[in-house]
Amino acid sequence: MNARVAILGTGLIGGSIGLGLKAADPAAEVIGYDPDPAAADAALRAGAADRIAPDPATAAADAGLVVLAGPVDALEGLAVAIEGSVAEDAVVTDVGSAKTAAVAAGERAFGPSFVGGHPMAGSERHGVEAATADLFRDAWWILTPTRSTAPEAYARVADLVGLLGAKPVAIAPAKHDSLVARLSHVPQLTASALVDLAAGAGDREALLGLAAGGFRDVTRIAASNPDLWVTILKSNKGSILEALTKLTGKLTDVAGAIERDGWDEVRDWLAGARDNRLELFARPDLSGEPAGLSLPVTDRPGVLAEVTTAAGRLGANIEDLRIVHSTEGGHGRLELVVTGEGPADRLADALSNMGYRVERTAIVDP
Amino acid sequence: MNARVAILGTGLIGGSIGLGLKAADPAAEVIGYDPDPAAADAALRAGAADRIAPDPATAAADAGLVVLAGPVDALEGLAVAIEGSVAEDAVVTDVGSAKTAAVAAGERAFGPSFVGGHPMAGSERHGVEAATADLFRDAWWILTPTRSTAPEAYARVADLVGLLGAKPVAIAPAKHDSLVARLSHVPQLTASALVDLAAGAGDREALLGLAAGGFRDVTRIAASNPDLWVTILKSNKGSILEALTKLTGKLTDVAGAIERDGWDEVRDWLAGARDNRLELFARPDLSGEPAGLSLPVTDRPGVLAEVTTAAGRLGANIEDLRIVHSTEGGHGRLELVVTGEGPADRLADALSNMGYRVERTAIVDP
Repeated sequence: MNARVAILGTGLIGGSIGLGLKAADPAAEVIGYDPDPAAADAALRAGAADRIAPDPATAAADAGLVVLAGPVDALEGLAVAIEGSVAEDAVVTDVGSAKTAAVAAGERAFGPSFVGGHPMAGSERHGVEAATADLFRDAWWILTPTRSTAPEAYARVADLVGLLGAKPVAIAPAKHDSLVARLSHVPQLTASALVDLAAGAGDREALLGLAAGGFRDVTRIAASNPDLWVTILKSNKGSILEALTKLTGKLTDVAGAIERDGWDEVRDWLAGARDNRLELFARPDLSGEPAGLSLPVTDRPGVLAEVTTAAGRLGANIEDLRIVHSTEGGHGRLELVVTGEGPADRLADALSNMGYRVERTAIVDP
Repeated sequence: MNARVAILGTGLIGGSIGLGLKAADPAAEVIGYDPDPAAADAALRAGAADRIAPDPATAAADAGLVVLAGPVDALEGLAVAIEGSVAEDAVVTDVGSAKTAAVAAGERAFGPSFVGGHPMAGSERHGVEAATADLFRDAWWILTPTRSTAPEAYARVADLVGLLGAKPVAIAPAKHDSLVARLSHVPQLTASALVDLAAGAGDREALLGLAAGGFRDVTRIAASNPDLWVTILKSNKGSILEALTKLTGKLTDVAGAIERDGWDEVRDWLAGARDNRLELFARPDLSGEPAGLSLPVTDRPGVLAEVTTAAGRLGANIEDLRIVHSTEGGHGRLELVVTGEGPADRLADALSNMGYRVERTAIVDP
């Protein structure tokens, strides 16, 4: 299905997609492009691409699936560069760490054929030298369908994600950006601020003595590459400012409680955070048997985004997703395979409440 | 020298001190006390104490060295309970995680014989069941001498610390509290605030997908015991409020820079934090040969604190410290052994600048 895939940007992420795809499907053809000819050449030698195109438009022209894998601030430029060259029925996705602006740019260029993505895997290292075929194995891979995303485009990208061994989960672009601000970007800034606070105290020997394992953990990410981080922060400015305001508000509240000796309040707040921390990293139950759902859908925009983000919200892991078009056109059936009877029931209930006519179906071995 | 040591509070820390002392010096006698008879009994069975006293005063009465190893909010009560029973020439120390109030209470009860302490080792577990003889091996152990601390008392406690395999470093009590606020207490609150911020975003499945390794590291300590933490926060309220204000100030400054697109400023700030993080955890050079210093001292208060905290500030590791009294009384010599010629020279210079007459001495094997 993904017979020809173009990967624009053959660094760690793009290179790992190429290697993983070739490992899962040796018949697939990977066309690579990188603005740095040495990086493109390294990807070719590493087997992450079958051939290298001289420019992004040439790479994209031949492909059924195009992956924009450059740095987040290069995505819009890449989209514009290939806009006129991408085939009518090709699908385009990206791997940027912030999604609102990237999805807007992608949809301006490619309409319903664009599906935003963000693989939740990486490494401290850079370049195709650090790329591996299993970088994404068992990792989550966020997809950000919108009201205008074509179900077929979503299914094609989810298919690639599955081939790479990752688990797709759908979230709306703005929600994604708010979440990564809270879960990644603001924690990064906070780790740097805590190092700054400590370093401002002087007395290096004393700092060494007092900086125990906890401080080491909390500030580990402060050793990350500052240039890379500025690019990421730029791409998600609005959500980051909002989350920073919330964080300083929380810290000011707890300072107020400490100030007025509100120790019960402080205790309850710490206990709530502990419970949330434990629950947050409790392993989700992905052990159930596959369970089928089927629902008639019209081709109105947004159906796919509604269904997949409802699944994400409920913790229902979508193992497979297929669109069966009616011969008359204009409507069809969406067939889903979800892990576990419980999540399948919860998702069926939620979709019924949203107005869909949902049937539970038997899974037949393909 | 520490022939009889009383340990008041036989939990993880007190129990590990008992076990470590017995391992290093089987002839030492350890007298244990714990308000919980079951905990005292467990310490006896574990070999962390040779005998158990029925109350703190009885335990302390027989000892040359008394270790207050209860929770930080029990220290003042313990000090008052044993005040009248401690022998004239006995030395008292504690292990509390905040020092200004503990040292004030200790000095009210025991005058120059009290030396505040804070071992920088622990475990997620509690009780003597988790105690080990090598809990403190190669760990730092902060001591907080003041102007009124007797050099002999400091030397006796530093001796115990060395027997347990730990490295003593001297810091003034207020400085200690400010440092632990920055390095431990405020990072703890911040980790909880970051969990709270994330949990407030809802969408558990999405959170799971997006919460990568960095978030896991930053928030690991948020899973700690809230009751224990309330006790610690209470003990260091002033320094914590000060450090929280500084932290929220830093976060507000970086939000301002992001808001006005001051990306160079943000980049430089991140780069500074990265450099500080890397430098902070660079291993100090403790590999040099021992180097001797000797200086005449009068018995005026504060000499010991001045010398040991100067060593801490300069990163000079004091391996050994001895007071040689002159036969006339009123003055004597302080003999130090420092690791490495470089640190010894720096310390000698600093002490000369402070008005001491310092001599470098040869180290003779004892």
